[in-house]
Amino acid sequence: MAYKEIGGGVCAAMGFKAAGMHSGIRPGKAKNDLMLVVADTPCAAAAIYTQNKVQGAPIAVTKAHLANGRARGYVCNSGNANTCAPGGQQLAQTCCRLAAEATGLAPEDFIIASTGVIGQALPLKPFEDGLPKLAAALSRDGHADATGAIMTTDTVRKEYAVEFTLGGRTCRLGGMCKGSGMINVNMATMLCFLSTDAAITPDMLQKALRQTAALSLNQLCIDGDTSTNDMAAIMASGFAGNREICADGEDYNAFCAALLAVLTWMARALAADGEGATKLLECMVTGAPDDATARLIAKTIISSALFKSAMFGADANWGRALCAIGYTPGNFPVDNISLTLKSRAGTVPVCKASAHLPFNEDDAAAVLFEREIQVLVDMGTANGSGTAWGCDLTYDYVKINGDYRT
Amino acid sequence: MAYKEIGGGVCAAMGFKAAGMHSGIRPGKAKNDLMLVVADTPCAAAAIYTQNKVQGAPIAVTKAHLANGRARGYVCNSGNANTCAPGGQQLAQTCCRLAAEATGLAPEDFIIASTGVIGQALPLKPFEDGLPKLAAALSRDGHADATGAIMTTDTVRKEYAVEFTLGGRTCRLGGMCKGSGMINVNMATMLCFLSTDAAITPDMLQKALRQTAALSLNQLCIDGDTSTNDMAAIMASGFAGNREICADGEDYNAFCAALLAVLTWMARALAADGEGATKLLECMVTGAPDDATARLIAKTIISSALFKSAMFGADANWGRALCAIGYTPGNFPVDNISLTLKSRAGTVPVCKASAHLPFNEDDAAAVLFEREIQVLVDMGTANGSGTAWGCDLTYDYVKINGDYRT
Repeated sequence: MAYKEIGGGVCAAMGFKAAGMHSGIRPGKAKNDLMLVVADTPCAAAAIYTQNKVQGAPIAVTKAHLANGRARGYVCNSGNANTCAPGGQQLAQTCCRLAAEATGLAPEDFIIASTGVIGQALPLKPFEDGLPKLAAALSRDGHADATGAIMTTDTVRKEYAVEFTLGGRTCRLGGMCKGSGMINVNMATMLCFLSTDAAITPDMLQKALRQTAALSLNQLCIDGDTSTNDMAAIMASGFAGNREICADGEDYNAFCAALLAVLTWMARALAADGEGATKLLECMVTGAPDDATARLIAKTIISSALFKSAMFGADANWGRALCAIGYTPGNFPVDNISLTLKSRAGTVPVCKASAHLPFNEDDAAAVLFEREIQVLVDMGTANGSGTAWGCDLTYDYVKINGDYRT
Repeated sequence: MAYKEIGGGVCAAMGFKAAGMHSGIRPGKAKNDLMLVVADTPCAAAAIYTQNKVQGAPIAVTKAHLANGRARGYVCNSGNANTCAPGGQQLAQTCCRLAAEATGLAPEDFIIASTGVIGQALPLKPFEDGLPKLAAALSRDGHADATGAIMTTDTVRKEYAVEFTLGGRTCRLGGMCKGSGMINVNMATMLCFLSTDAAITPDMLQKALRQTAALSLNQLCIDGDTSTNDMAAIMASGFAGNREICADGEDYNAFCAALLAVLTWMARALAADGEGATKLLECMVTGAPDDATARLIAKTIISSALFKSAMFGADANWGRALCAIGYTPGNFPVDNISLTLKSRAGTVPVCKASAHLPFNEDDAAAVLFEREIQVLVDMGTANGSGTAWGCDLTYDYVKINGDYRT
């Protein structure tokens, strides 16, 4: 283990302060709905964005602001997505200007994001009133308040940070994320705000984010819906004093390992807190022709409504997984598949050579009654491996989304 | 309208008899589980199959039997899919042999299919005992009993037939289908058995089935899971006495129109009876760059778990549809989309130029409380159009699939 877990979330790295508050974007709900994160110094910055062709207005504004690979802050609200609503880009720009006025920085220094209902005009008053208060409240202890402000149907705050070493210097990397429904990932179908005090160039930061997200956030599926608004972003202050990472090599690999650790923790946390979820499902595929195929198989299993329903019901219906493997795009052999269900309660092989393996139904049910379940698939072909995370499909998912807007 | 609806299902066309019974494949359930359909003459025959790489044993046997483009009968059981179980192909061949012995035909004359649980060995005794009884019971009135035998979680029998004219001769085309969950279609993710008395060559029959299924069955999505076992098949007896269709032309087009009418009725019936469904959703996309894109957009909307949940809750959350349009594969403009919700209760435009259009929430809710809802999408780009069918996502879907095997 080349890193260790620490506290502090998005403020764990040196040089970052945060604050969060209830600004009134969601009228009548006392929940925090606006956050601000500011860096003490200009940072190298990178982001990845939703692949949805319908994109929230904040995405376009953030892309423009990140064109130079530099940023100094995050502004994010929940309760309104600022998407498919009139004047959205101008509203997002105005929010950045308000953040700049409150902090003494430039509007272009800000990465902005919004999450919530689509199609309603973003109200500016909460930003006008709230951002000066947030700027005054910025502190290294504000990470939890800020994390609370980006939650929508999330039931728990999600923040995480690690400490690692680059060339003898201690570095930190951490952040927050949100996301519960509308999650299928080809990139970042949630919001994820990261910070690090490692020194790294914008190009290498972008590359590291893209490479590690492919193995973590992009392997997450709650419901197959790729959102219009979401992104993962990272700022690097350089305060750790390591020699700046500007090329591949040992330091870059160590940085990626830490980033992957944080993003994997986040993918698991997002899956466990999926809308209505009662179980975290982790599907690990081995023995596939290659890693990309293994990842795709794992994600297809974890995305199957039938498989997810069976897991909710603690029903060891492994045929649902075989069926999902079969409709995974690509050509690969499907006649030598083994499948094992595993949790704290035990390990039960249920399928071998793509056929039924006699097993004790009570043992299997005991495995599936746990909150964290591993589905181990051996494709029996070669050495490709990959993992995906998801959750069960429950009555509450339907309930939450049957009346989301009220 | 070049055709009219008639009764008789798979026996509406001249030359077909059917029977269905409870044979005991599902122990303890009195429901019909085995059916037989036999033609009075060798028929031109065609089928399309699931695209799942994991395929039920009956699929391979049927493909071999249809290599010559000829068939005389359908054998189908519910309660066991004969998939991912030892000796499946041999068991399917034995079932065809038993059907041949009971009817005096050849094993190769039969199209065989199975539906139900994956991974359990198919019991032969019910076929040994049941097929002679079914052969003795074959009649033109047996279509409803046969249709009942292929149902799994279906709640209603689905059969339909039409009458049309080819070169002055009256022809009939009809059939049955089943399917409720595990439905996403790129082909035939259900079972559909058709018959016609029109004379048509096997090649043209195959072409007609493929072309019309692309506009009907393949535009159906219940839950995004493409099954391992399913197929649509058609037999043509030629008893109508029309000049045999052996090439494109007026007769071929008239035949395709009738076939499309039957398959569209079936797609709608399957969607309306989707597992746990309370509403039939019909999404009609116009103004797209081309028809293929329009069909893909319609199917993506109808497949979205978030959109389906909103329809269950009668929530006019059109942002869910915009989001699904945005993640539909392909490159096309998304800035001039209009969206209208329609049912017997009225018509409510909710989105114009990809932005919110003020509407009365009570009016929209009234539209969405109906059992059949149309979602009209105008992409505002060109003239491509396409339709897809689906259903809402409900508590009962989760309940049904949370404990499917017991």
